[in-house]
Amino acid sequence: MTAQPPAPLRVTVWNENRHEQGATPYEQLDAKVAELYPKGMHDAIASGIEDHLSPEVKIRIATLDEPEHGLTEGVLAETDVLTWWGHVAHGEVSDEVVARVQEHVLAGMGLVVLHSGAQSKIFRRLMGTTGNLRWRSEHDRELVWTVNPSHPIAQGVPHPIVIDEDEMYGEFFDIPAPDELVFVTSFTGGEIIRSGCVFRRGYGKIFYFSPGDEAYPVYHHPDVRRVIANAVQWAAPSREQRGPIVATRSETGWFEDGEQQA
Amino acid sequence: MTAQPPAPLRVTVWNENRHEQGATPYEQLDAKVAELYPKGMHDAIASGIEDHLSPEVKIRIATLDEPEHGLTEGVLAETDVLTWWGHVAHGEVSDEVVARVQEHVLAGMGLVVLHSGAQSKIFRRLMGTTGNLRWRSEHDRELVWTVNPSHPIAQGVPHPIVIDEDEMYGEFFDIPAPDELVFVTSFTGGEIIRSGCVFRRGYGKIFYFSPGDEAYPVYHHPDVRRVIANAVQWAAPSREQRGPIVATRSETGWFEDGEQQA
Amino acid sequence: MTAQPPAPLRVTVWNENRHEQGATPYEQLDAKVAELYPKGMHDAIASGIEDHLSPEVKIRIATLDEPEHGLTEGVLAETDVLTWWGHVAHGEVSDEVVARVQEHVLAGMGLVVLHSGAQSKIFRRLMGTTGNLRWRSEHDRELVWTVNPSHPIAQGVPHPIVIDEDEMYGEFFDIPAPDELVFVTSFTGGEIIRSGCVFRRGYGKIFYFSPGDEAYPVYHHPDVRRVIANAVQWAAPSREQRGPIVATRSETGWFEDGEQQA
Amino acid sequence: MTAQPPAPLRVTVWNENRHEQGATPYEQLDAKVAELYPKGMHDAIASGIEDHLSPEVKIRIATLDEPEHGLTEGVLAETDVLTWWGHVAHGEVSDEVVARVQEHVLAGMGLVVLHSGAQSKIFRRLMGTTGNLRWRSEHDRELVWTVNPSHPIAQGVPHPIVIDEDEMYGEFFDIPAPDELVFVTSFTGGEIIRSGCVFRRGYGKIFYFSPGDEAYPVYHHPDVRRVIANAVQWAAPSREQRGPIVATRSETGWFEDGEQQA
Repeated sequence: MTAQPPAPLRVTVWNENRHEQGATPYEQLDAKVAELYPKGMHDAIASGIEDHLSPEVKIRIATLDEPEHGLTEGVLAETDVLTWWGHVAHGEVSDEVVARVQEHVLAGMGLVVLHSGAQSKIFRRLMGTTGNLRWRSEHDRELVWTVNPSHPIAQGVPHPIVIDEDEMYGEFFDIPAPDELVFVTSFTGGEIIRSGCVFRRGYGKIFYFSPGDEAYPVYHHPDVRRVIANAVQWAAPSREQRGPIVATRSETGWFEDGEQQA
Repeated sequence: MTAQPPAPLRVTVWNENRHEQGATPYEQLDAKVAELYPKGMHDAIASGIEDHLSPEVKIRIATLDEPEHGLTEGVLAETDVLTWWGHVAHGEVSDEVVARVQEHVLAGMGLVVLHSGAQSKIFRRLMGTTGNLRWRSEHDRELVWTVNPSHPIAQGVPHPIVIDEDEMYGEFFDIPAPDELVFVTSFTGGEIIRSGCVFRRGYGKIFYFSPGDEAYPVYHHPDVRRVIANAVQWAAPSREQRGPIVATRSETGWFEDGEQQA
Repeated sequence: MTAQPPAPLRVTVWNENRHEQGATPYEQLDAKVAELYPKGMHDAIASGIEDHLSPEVKIRIATLDEPEHGLTEGVLAETDVLTWWGHVAHGEVSDEVVARVQEHVLAGMGLVVLHSGAQSKIFRRLMGTTGNLRWRSEHDRELVWTVNPSHPIAQGVPHPIVIDEDEMYGEFFDIPAPDELVFVTSFTGGEIIRSGCVFRRGYGKIFYFSPGDEAYPVYHHPDVRRVIANAVQWAAPSREQRGPIVATRSETGWFEDGEQQA
Repeated sequence: MTAQPPAPLRVTVWNENRHEQGATPYEQLDAKVAELYPKGMHDAIASGIEDHLSPEVKIRIATLDEPEHGLTEGVLAETDVLTWWGHVAHGEVSDEVVARVQEHVLAGMGLVVLHSGAQSKIFRRLMGTTGNLRWRSEHDRELVWTVNPSHPIAQGVPHPIVIDEDEMYGEFFDIPAPDELVFVTSFTGGEIIRSGCVFRRGYGKIFYFSPGDEAYPVYHHPDVRRVIANAVQWAAPSREQRGPIVATRSETGWFEDGEQQA
């Protein structure tokens, strides 16, 4: 018996990919990002996943400036888990693509939302909230504490994870109470945030993970990479087939004689 | 001490109000609704709330066909709790009004969503899911069971509430797992649904209650009226002032010397 | 990478095993049980697990009348997941063994509690509640509805599961709100119960599943067997080592220089 | 309509009351406690509640060294909400009294557990876990952050609450995932803890609040006093009558003809 999807797991790593191109108004920041992530943040994120899940994973990269942001119906249909990193260009993501991603999540595709993705259109749409929070990019040390030690996403990382420098993200963080809270972070300045949050929506599984910023080498951190890989594995579809949840008129006794829904 | 808003509680009862006007393609159904709810479903819902909360409540009615659906910025600014009933015309509710209602909920306004409001734009937008479910209007008896007996919304009603006839609404019901599950319903045909669901979003409180259909006299049922009144009271804003949750840059130590957020 | 325990999974199926021995005051019931479960209910439960998890599982049987109820420290230390079925003799389970099982669960051992185990000492102790509920053994049909369709325990079974005859177990069921609610059941008589409930306690995972009675052939039902197998697999320890959670004095900065907890 | 209990609310403040008597092996600590809390910690806790709820509250004090620890059946029967502070003498609380308190909580009495009460017998019994955690009494500053801003217990306090000095209590904190998480704390040393936790058990409501130590003047802190008063008010019984949840055989159709449970 297995509830696992057939190997390999098909992961699409989505990246806004603007800082890396020197394509934002923040020249200094762009230069920093290019230095930290010379092959793009997507490359760091993807390689972290591969480190842990290879060879049972097959990764595709998609970025904002590709046609349809690289997220065509065909790509999504072949994606088991999508990871999302965006920052300065949330508004440029087309509503049509956002709706398409939402449909796939509700139909069973996994979604791992990273850091500033909290304010992305897709996360806001799936949560119903703004994802707003306090922030400060001043080299705070981040400590990531496990509050759900038997959760699969928390396996294999120390307690706490120590990230020498990261952007501060602090409460109140405008999200629904997570279905399962896995990590809580504190920063040097004293702020805290619910940093590892599990949500189930429709047939899909969603994980939000707050560590990770373009201005710090967070996606090179071995424990951060492990958490993201764990999350990707956890978010893999549970059901064999993907499909929408539709409103259905059901006759009395529709489920008798073995006519139940698979 | 009190965490209560100043009396009276300002409630806006929103109703699609199309069946009652004989304004849908379903003539026979419209006639039935007009017979069951001669003053409109909003009147039955409002009078149920008044029965329990008067004189500490002040009710306003708003309907789809009014300008801005009766939900102008001014009306919402003076609404502590909004109740929502819609069915055949969800698509006619303007996106602008939906966005406005969402903003008010996230800023603290209470929302009580009734029955077919599960598929309304506003509920879908706040939940991130479709609200889809199974249904059948065949005079099933509905039994509403309390699974959270210390919750304020469950007070004063029998266990189970017996509703002689109602539309069947069955699982899988595409909503996020409720923050608190208060009621679960069974129907004659054997289906069940999570029928009383608490959600917190932003600074606002939301209650979804599934009993209640235009084709049955459910909003005249004393226990249904009690639950809706309880829910309205519970959903009243907790915070004294209403306002948005904004992304804020916070200097290190911003909270020292009494400069915290109220 | 894997978060899975080393194969095979070591499961201990615990059974009160009194009805099967004709050892209770309920002669007629005992005869019925012996007829339905000629090799004991433990055999039916174990074979259902084996059907789905073999060869990656190794099952041991333990029963009430063995020394220490078959649950010595040695047995528990070699048990990844314990399943529990008891009914008429909850009071005969020694407090010492109950405390030992609780310690192992908090230290990481999985626990799957079946049917009347809701009122067992071990479940009451882990929940803090009575596990009391309404009941009636009158051949009600039981329908088991999935309300969490992406949960691993819900995979591979129809929606609903149809059990032709079972004992009615109805709300209010005195348990904490589950961490995740997976199944809700309805019965012919109209009652409902939260029938598939996930709880995390300490480092251990617990699943309660209400279907299953000594007077009906429920443990021969293929879907019930699948759910129990799924639950056993899900409840497997997440952490590599088992150990207690102890109160610890921690010096300032104890986690620096890689001295974090594994 | 009101779901409130009849005024005044009857609160019993329970205190171990050993440090204040110079009755522990920790002479220096005892002297410190006597200095900070010359009338006993119970007096500070009680006066904080009175500040906010008077005159609608009537407070009784009960301590460990009274007969039956001051918690006779008669006292509990007249208690709407019990607050609990213990530290060095958890083991001296009789199992009989603990069982009695548990029964009253499950039957509807509110319980507010403070600080080191996390390891008390009554809290462990109601949670099923050890309540163990990391600790350090080294004058850390504690910041208490609201993560559930619409919850009644969070009203009227700043975000964050700043406590200049307190004992550090850190994760992993061995409790069930709270039904609602209201506060999360950070300390100077970087640790965090889920510091304000709501649990419902049986018909009773429970709040755990971690700030507060015998060696610091935490119970004189105005915001801490406000939270405790809020929690007492919130934990007041919802149901009019107190009574146990019993296992009940229910005939088919028992709920018809208005014979439901109140």
